[in-house]
Amino acid sequence: MGGEATAYRRRLDRLLERLPHLGVDAILFFEMNNIRYLTGFTGSDGVFILRSDNGVLLVDGRYTTQAGEEAPQCEVVQYRDKIGGIVSVLGEKEVKRAGFEAAAISVEFHEKLRGKLAPGMLIPLTEALTGLRSVKDGQEVLLLRRAVDIATDALWQVIEEMRPGVEERTIALEMDYRMRALGSEETSFPTIVASGLNAALPHAHPGPRKLEDGDAVVMDFGAVHAGYRSDETCTFVLGRADKKFREVYSIVKDAHDRAIEAVRAGAACREIDRIARQVIEKKGYGQHFSHGTGHGVGLDVHEAPRLSALSDQVLEAGMVVTIEPGIYLPGHWGIRIEDMVLVKDDGCDILTKISKELKII
Amino acid sequence: MGGEATAYRRRLDRLLERLPHLGVDAILFFEMNNIRYLTGFTGSDGVFILRSDNGVLLVDGRYTTQAGEEAPQCEVVQYRDKIGGIVSVLGEKEVKRAGFEAAAISVEFHEKLRGKLAPGMLIPLTEALTGLRSVKDGQEVLLLRRAVDIATDALWQVIEEMRPGVEERTIALEMDYRMRALGSEETSFPTIVASGLNAALPHAHPGPRKLEDGDAVVMDFGAVHAGYRSDETCTFVLGRADKKFREVYSIVKDAHDRAIEAVRAGAACREIDRIARQVIEKKGYGQHFSHGTGHGVGLDVHEAPRLSALSDQVLEAGMVVTIEPGIYLPGHWGIRIEDMVLVKDDGCDILTKISKELKII
Repeated sequence: MGGEATAYRRRLDRLLERLPHLGVDAILFFEMNNIRYLTGFTGSDGVFILRSDNGVLLVDGRYTTQAGEEAPQCEVVQYRDKIGGIVSVLGEKEVKRAGFEAAAISVEFHEKLRGKLAPGMLIPLTEALTGLRSVKDGQEVLLLRRAVDIATDALWQVIEEMRPGVEERTIALEMDYRMRALGSEETSFPTIVASGLNAALPHAHPGPRKLEDGDAVVMDFGAVHAGYRSDETCTFVLGRADKKFREVYSIVKDAHDRAIEAVRAGAACREIDRIARQVIEKKGYGQHFSHGTGHGVGLDVHEAPRLSALSDQVLEAGMVVTIEPGIYLPGHWGIRIEDMVLVKDDGCDILTKISKELKII
Repeated sequence: MGGEATAYRRRLDRLLERLPHLGVDAILFFEMNNIRYLTGFTGSDGVFILRSDNGVLLVDGRYTTQAGEEAPQCEVVQYRDKIGGIVSVLGEKEVKRAGFEAAAISVEFHEKLRGKLAPGMLIPLTEALTGLRSVKDGQEVLLLRRAVDIATDALWQVIEEMRPGVEERTIALEMDYRMRALGSEETSFPTIVASGLNAALPHAHPGPRKLEDGDAVVMDFGAVHAGYRSDETCTFVLGRADKKFREVYSIVKDAHDRAIEAVRAGAACREIDRIARQVIEKKGYGQHFSHGTGHGVGLDVHEAPRLSALSDQVLEAGMVVTIEPGIYLPGHWGIRIEDMVLVKDDGCDILTKISKELKII
């Protein structure tokens, strides 16, 4: 627990250093995963007000006890009405300019809050907070590794049930069930099991289609441990893989491997995307790789940084990102291969455990 | 399908009638369940622009085919950039004043969109859209009944497994698994299984506590069918119930029954809350009934109207609401009893199936 309290202190200190540059003397946090990251509070609703001298965690009556236990380093204030609570704390602490997460509150809430405060007091913050959680500390990496372990163990169990005649949605349900039975708090995101023609849809929902001999099966899945999420994609083949499939699989695998080889602190995110994309484009499948190469993962399954052609972010040691190139051939099948990697000064560690060599089951 | 298209047309027509009163010539919808309600589109992202002469559904490339299939009555426009897409459609259709769901978009998104449009063009709408989905049509009631059936069947299976020594989280996992195996698309909300001391916490998460003989077990659960959600709470007792528990159970049951007897079109929501609350207050447990008496349920598990002391809504025929009084005794146990009811002109139909007489298992 001592170590954790230090981690929260460190996270706050890093932000506090930036307050003067942001031109504010407080920041209002509404995004629950940011609040969890900064305080340890895991409730579903609340506000965190960061001030130069302290942090105030505002919660409703359901969470007063829990907030006190989870965030003993914070002053906990209970509100009946969220806006009233914020106004009262800002007044008490004589805050003059309060930054807020402009992506996390609605226009309606903002209008109501603004109406109760001095004009110009609320300062929208956007890019300034984007990378707040992107560099993970050692404890966070351990939690991510534990989430990966749970998902891996579940997959090994479920792979036994993947045979012709079983419905996609049954595989997805079994995967979700086993991840939770093994300790996952929930699923990291809705599990994808896409077989045959459906594998050509990057965002397919598992449905009643029955697996058939020769099918490609794209499985995209993740577990959650202490709030931290894993994200991994395997593409298996049932029974036999033809020449074309083997060829395209090796292209996606090559794109995946080349991108991972390029991951290191200081590399531009768009450069990682370019490397994966170039492998696929050179083989003539460029238009069939219809999404970015990866994204950060942590308390949210999609968080900063973004590894795409449009990204202007740079990798830093401690970031955890996915590398997930794919080729989708409409009317035929699709292949996606995804690992989670931890960025290091001189390269990266692959956090996921399952080999991405072609596996015929 | 013909019937469904008519339902969407009817929903749009009802809104179109109100456009002049709202002082706008178009409404931008961002809330995905409102878009689903108005168009039939079930994707995870998109925008719906309602105009006096037509409806335009804007989606990204993932959803173009699906939108065309699910919402054939709409003009479907594919965007690469959401804001660019909106700006282009508004310009093309010569919209002058566009209302928008002020509770559904962030300050950041609003700022970006506003910057690309003529000044004063975006008009925030709040209360005007609150009750959009609260009155259900016959088809919606059928879907809700189907969700209830799934949840009921799952509960009967799980009840067999509720015995001393089984962990709360195992019961919750089995419940979620069986609901999905019986056809539920997902769980309506995180299932609550709160036993013994935990039953005194209205929002307990199922944890490692093992059921014990004599425990109260509060189970709050729901299934999802075609997007429509059920919501029900049963409080069971394991093995034996003492005198005090029976007494408090009958108070909660009485509050529940009295409230249901009062439900009819024209009744004030706050009056229903008052009736349930008064039963509990008269017996001296007023401070232990710490939440509202109920809420609307449909595509969202919590939607308008709200049955609380603060509500100024009035029940209408076709609304579906929960009635869920509870008494929570910290350090002892808690009891909540919840049914879903369909409001009618002269009373209501109870949609949930499980008897709320005290059940000892």
